[in-house]
Amino acid sequence: MSTTAMINSHPNSTAGLSVDLLAEAIDAAAVCATTCTNCADACLAEESVADLRNCLRTNLDCADVCAAAASVLSRRTGSNVSTVKEMLTSCVTACADCADECEGHAGMHEHCRVCAEVCRRCEKACADLLTAIG
Amino acid sequence: MSTTAMINSHPNSTAGLSVDLLAEAIDAAAVCATTCTNCADACLAEESVADLRNCLRTNLDCADVCAAAASVLSRRTGSNVSTVKEMLTSCVTACADCADECEGHAGMHEHCRVCAEVCRRCEKACADLLTAIG
Amino acid sequence: MSTTAMINSHPNSTAGLSVDLLAEAIDAAAVCATTCTNCADACLAEESVADLRNCLRTNLDCADVCAAAASVLSRRTGSNVSTVKEMLTSCVTACADCADECEGHAGMHEHCRVCAEVCRRCEKACADLLTAIG
Amino acid sequence: MSTTAMINSHPNSTAGLSVDLLAEAIDAAAVCATTCTNCADACLAEESVADLRNCLRTNLDCADVCAAAASVLSRRTGSNVSTVKEMLTSCVTACADCADECEGHAGMHEHCRVCAEVCRRCEKACADLLTAIG
Repeated sequence: MSTTAMINSHPNSTAGLSVDLLAEAIDAAAVCATTCTNCADACLAEESVADLRNCLRTNLDCADVCAAAASVLSRRTGSNVSTVKEMLTSCVTACADCADECEGHAGMHEHCRVCAEVCRRCEKACADLLTAIG
Repeated sequence: MSTTAMINSHPNSTAGLSVDLLAEAIDAAAVCATTCTNCADACLAEESVADLRNCLRTNLDCADVCAAAASVLSRRTGSNVSTVKEMLTSCVTACADCADECEGHAGMHEHCRVCAEVCRRCEKACADLLTAIG
Repeated sequence: MSTTAMINSHPNSTAGLSVDLLAEAIDAAAVCATTCTNCADACLAEESVADLRNCLRTNLDCADVCAAAASVLSRRTGSNVSTVKEMLTSCVTACADCADECEGHAGMHEHCRVCAEVCRRCEKACADLLTAIG
Repeated sequence: MSTTAMINSHPNSTAGLSVDLLAEAIDAAAVCATTCTNCADACLAEESVADLRNCLRTNLDCADVCAAAASVLSRRTGSNVSTVKEMLTSCVTACADCADECEGHAGMHEHCRVCAEVCRRCEKACADLLTAIG
């Protein structure tokens, strides 16, 4: 992705934050948003859709939270640290909730197995960035 | 708005939550998202745009967080309480940050005065709902 | 809603466009986004969810398109008329598709009846604005 | 990205559409949404922000349209072809408008140069998919 190039060409410095950690959190959240939207739609098409209601729910919530997190993390003009930290926390929680749910039927549905992996990557990326911000 | 009618026609009960509190949080977050998008664009058009950078930043962050919160709060199928609570917390923080910023130039820009009011309404609605969820 | 106040306090004029038509399109699209998100979740909770797959699909598509349309319509700084007109056309189409679908089971599900009404309001508001822009 | 794996694990076939074309359109739109959000924030931080108003405008519009397009394209349950085609058309237009604007100062701002490239990729991917759908 072009995220590292965008971060490095921004007029403001990253204020000591690792470019790699920041780029990874933005990319992981953006991919997670699309993947969760995909997984919700695949669950909806399954014959067993009635058993996948909670998976659709956590997928759709996670997609919304990750999309918002990716946008908030993309901004570095001005200062809004408290909102950034809260959104990282929300994103860690939404990804963990969705991964827990998807892992429960990863053996039956390949889309849930892939989605759980993508959620775990985003959960870790946001947790690592939160630690780095302090 | 039609939010109360939508909540009351949902197959699931609100599990003891006040319909009024829930509808107010959804409506306040939805209006806040649009209002903050409007305020960011109005700030961009001001001659003093260079002095309004932080206002644009908090406007755009608040719009993203409120839109995601409105969507998450609109779901009641399955269970995802931890994500709901984190997003309410994020929304309280983003609205407080944006209202603090907008109030600083509410005397000069009517759009910032209106936006600050809308943010304070959403901050309160989400805080009240968070208290009710417990 | 506060949309009229926000439009009137924007530094730029509406370039001959009726404030009422513009405010109605923004408000109708914002309410439609939330209502469709609600309706998708209510359909998911219905026992007959397997028969409501297409309704969930058109609800979720309509929610995404309306949210994007509400944001694009909220901007008046600079000029981006071709994108504005295309998004109005997309919004008219998405609302018509969703209303057609919801009307098909409005007699069985009150949330679909309300959602169809909200979609028709947004379809009309965007079509009227498109005509006014020319 | 994991988009190809998600498409291939969806219960529904792609109805004759090339998986590569569909995956490329979803990925290109998702990356374009994040990149345009980044570029808007970088423009806001530039000393010459007052000269970059139209770039911020087309960036923010393009980010909203691309995010909605990526979500709509991720769905294949049920049928909503007219909305899909309209959103592809909107996305082609928004990306062309933003790329035209960013290319105008690509020599001065590296973030605009990268953003224009990402917009052109998305414009082409959506146009190609639109042709394939017919």
